Amino acid sequence: MKVKEISSATNAVLKRVRALDDRAERKESGLFLIEGRTLIEEAIRNQVELDNVVTTRPFMEKEIDQKLTASLPTVNIVSDAVFKTLYTTSTSCGMIATAVQPKSSLEQCFAPVHPLMVVGDQIQDPGNLGTIMRTCLAFGVDSLVLSKGSVDCYSPKVVRSSMGAIFALPVVQDVDMEHCLNEFAKYNVIPLALDPSGSRSYWELDSSGPVALIFGNEGHGLSRLVLDRARNPLKIPIAPNCESLNVAVSVGIVLAHVHKQRHF
Amino acid sequence: MKVKEISSATNAVLKRVRALDDRAERKESGLFLIEGRTLIEEAIRNQVELDNVVTTRPFMEKEIDQKLTASLPTVNIVSDAVFKTLYTTSTSCGMIATAVQPKSSLEQCFAPVHPLMVVGDQIQDPGNLGTIMRTCLAFGVDSLVLSKGSVDCYSPKVVRSSMGAIFALPVVQDVDMEHCLNEFAKYNVIPLALDPSGSRSYWELDSSGPVALIFGNEGHGLSRLVLDRARNPLKIPIAPNCESLNVAVSVGIVLAHVHKQRHF
Repeated sequence: MKVKEISSATNAVLKRVRALDDRAERKESGLFLIEGRTLIEEAIRNQVELDNVVTTRPFMEKEIDQKLTASLPTVNIVSDAVFKTLYTTSTSCGMIATAVQPKSSLEQCFAPVHPLMVVGDQIQDPGNLGTIMRTCLAFGVDSLVLSKGSVDCYSPKVVRSSMGAIFALPVVQDVDMEHCLNEFAKYNVIPLALDPSGSRSYWELDSSGPVALIFGNEGHGLSRLVLDRARNPLKIPIAPNCESLNVAVSVGIVLAHVHKQRHF
Repeated sequence: MKVKEISSATNAVLKRVRALDDRAERKESGLFLIEGRTLIEEAIRNQVELDNVVTTRPFMEKEIDQKLTASLPTVNIVSDAVFKTLYTTSTSCGMIATAVQPKSSLEQCFAPVHPLMVVGDQIQDPGNLGTIMRTCLAFGVDSLVLSKGSVDCYSPKVVRSSMGAIFALPVVQDVDMEHCLNEFAKYNVIPLALDPSGSRSYWELDSSGPVALIFGNEGHGLSRLVLDRARNPLKIPIAPNCESLNVAVSVGIVLAHVHKQRHF
């Protein structure tokens, strides 16, 4: 581990950290931010390639032990005042890493014999997407596909709320839904759409084969395209006076059922 | 509906709106904030008593129709600049109401023949608590009990993320857990604790009688007291390399199972 003192607030490394709060910048550079020691350790455990680490001297001396030190690339030391200009969390996260976005392709998603896939059709809320990732990992989902128009899975809020699941779960984003549905047909993956209009309950689904569970946007649900192409949507029955469930909760309910069906 | 123009930014009604972002102030006054037209309409539908409404002239003329007008108490009109100092949302919510907190007592929770209760043992995250409320309402939960040390269920963020469930679901907060467990024993309500250490899976639970499902804090789970007193905790089986599920997702999974068991 190399240690570098940075005194200039306009240093190139710091500029990059600040820039990575922006989606276009993340897309262009292929990098993203990981904030806080716990998440950085989780990234290292999952072989995510770290680019740079920024922290303060007191944090390094108190919180970064030898084991962690050994896995870090260059560590850049800045003052408290400069560090305050870097993090996107509400209180200081202590250390920030820039890291290379792990890349998966749609083709790779079809490699397992009976893939269990989850598709987010324009999920908008970062907290929801992070929670969905965490839930997918907990229930053995093979990959997560996000349509064009979804929130960026590498946004700092998504990374945080995924609690590190983003480092372990293969995620493909910016996918054209029509292309995706064509690929499902090609690889014999059954697309199962979850929608309150469904005539079957989620517990009637047979998940023993290759399946892709498709969940829609928080406000207006699934796109017309998905509703037209996926057969026979499934619903989660709820009380009649209620409008809907949170999408991350819906994902959890359906995946818990699938996990039980596949493993118990 | 009375309409009042307020020009002074230090007007008493506006001061109260700003003060209600603070928990102690909400507790003392028994009031809370409802932000945005949709939530205010939902509150009216659920007979929540509104105290004051604040909006801007353009919003009133464009967005408040006659039907809504008829249900409103005094509407206070302020300038855009003053309105900006009032809301807790990231972008303008258009109108804000101060309203009387609906009150439920622990005794009332035992009124149904076979009550289905959910208990939050020190839930901290406002988004989680709001989502839990919404999920409880969707699955026919009779009441939600929150222990001392939980986030305030009337905080603006909780109200928002409950999507109005807070107006319809009986909630009792600031409850002493020991007293609560004693009351469960007195009323023959079976306390079922959800914990990763559980030896039984959640699908083995029998929810046909009076039950209280107890969920713990996001970071450190259930308190010692609950683990000692509730028999035989239940778990949600997940992949071995995963630490845990989000608490609102866990609530959804268990309640979906209970809802199916009770109604299908």
